[in-house]
Amino acid sequence: MLLRTGRVATLATLDRNTGHPFASLINMGTDRDGSPVILTSRLATHTANLEADARASLLIAETGKGDALAYPRLTVLGTFRPVVREDADEPRLRRRFLLRHPKSELYAGFADFGFWRMEVVSAHLNGGFARAADLAAAEVLSDLNDAKELADAEDDAIAHMNGDHSEACRLYATRLLDLPDGAWRCVGVAPEGLELQLGGEAAWLPFSQRVMAPGALRPMLRQLADQARRA
Amino acid sequence: MLLRTGRVATLATLDRNTGHPFASLINMGTDRDGSPVILTSRLATHTANLEADARASLLIAETGKGDALAYPRLTVLGTFRPVVREDADEPRLRRRFLLRHPKSELYAGFADFGFWRMEVVSAHLNGGFARAADLAAAEVLSDLNDAKELADAEDDAIAHMNGDHSEACRLYATRLLDLPDGAWRCVGVAPEGLELQLGGEAAWLPFSQRVMAPGALRPMLRQLADQARRA
Repeated sequence: MLLRTGRVATLATLDRNTGHPFASLINMGTDRDGSPVILTSRLATHTANLEADARASLLIAETGKGDALAYPRLTVLGTFRPVVREDADEPRLRRRFLLRHPKSELYAGFADFGFWRMEVVSAHLNGGFARAADLAAAEVLSDLNDAKELADAEDDAIAHMNGDHSEACRLYATRLLDLPDGAWRCVGVAPEGLELQLGGEAAWLPFSQRVMAPGALRPMLRQLADQARRA
Repeated sequence: MLLRTGRVATLATLDRNTGHPFASLINMGTDRDGSPVILTSRLATHTANLEADARASLLIAETGKGDALAYPRLTVLGTFRPVVREDADEPRLRRRFLLRHPKSELYAGFADFGFWRMEVVSAHLNGGFARAADLAAAEVLSDLNDAKELADAEDDAIAHMNGDHSEACRLYATRLLDLPDGAWRCVGVAPEGLELQLGGEAAWLPFSQRVMAPGALRPMLRQLADQARRA
């Protein structure tokens, strides 16, 4: 789930003066369904580009040692919508983004900064040398139509995990995902899994089956914690 | 000199079906003046995009620990030209690219692979948080009009440095640029400096003054070697 673990991505916009595609670096987060969310300054070139033409893509690449082209990466194509303070989803997008990027709190309140949410139209997955596939939006996003209860309970679930079950988050990351030890935190809950984070590292814990409501989330998390303790 | 040390970059092309800017990962090299050169397969989406509309940009980002947005990065905008086997500059572009990416030798000869050279139109430098500047092509490329002698001697100079002065390359990197020890090699000679490489790491050694001919290159390299030995 590259989309769920992306923190830094390359944004491609259309240069408002020449029409050239313009690549720039950006911090990204996601909405509950996985739709990319960015926070940009109106003073930045890519923001001026988006204001003129909102078509864009984001490249999210897994990184590691050696040849960068040997790792999977995902290009997500879509159209960005500016999120204004009055929008009903602004508080949610802000909250989710700042969980993912706590340092952005420094400037997220500045008057020239604002969020943009991407309406995904398609995606292109490159799994490494000579392995590529075109994907539909539905193949990279979570369907929340049958999981509204879970989505509505996300904030409470995150607060509960980080408040009362921080040790479980740590075990998920270290025992089940084989990641470095530390104070891992939960930063997102999706029907297909849990978004975890430690400093600049993001991770994705997949569920063994789709979870659509808080009543099913609890036993799933407990089962994973038991599994982690035994591991 | 991000352009001279870039090895992996994000390429932004125009999606041939939807017109969306399309971001993908790519290996890059440069021509003698710094113009970006890429090697792509005709089977790749970005190649099909370039064949339909050759306008593109490349994002070259310095990487390191911590916040990726705190490091400098350069967006180079331009138009790519396909380089066919019969082109006069094909052997030079191939040679320079394969010095930078020795592993690409595995597929550089495949029938579906070919080089593209970017004609730079402008650039955008982002020096870290809230420090950005638009640059003209002449500000990021080397002017070779008065340095034709040096350009013509590049292959010999590279062979000479790697054959007879490999220890100097190592000292330049370790003593003058404070880089890890190893068998550093010279992979490019520009009027403004030397391109060095060790495995996947690229470095740039700036000259104290512009060098336009082999006669001026020798004392400059000797002086830098003396300086490195004393360091």
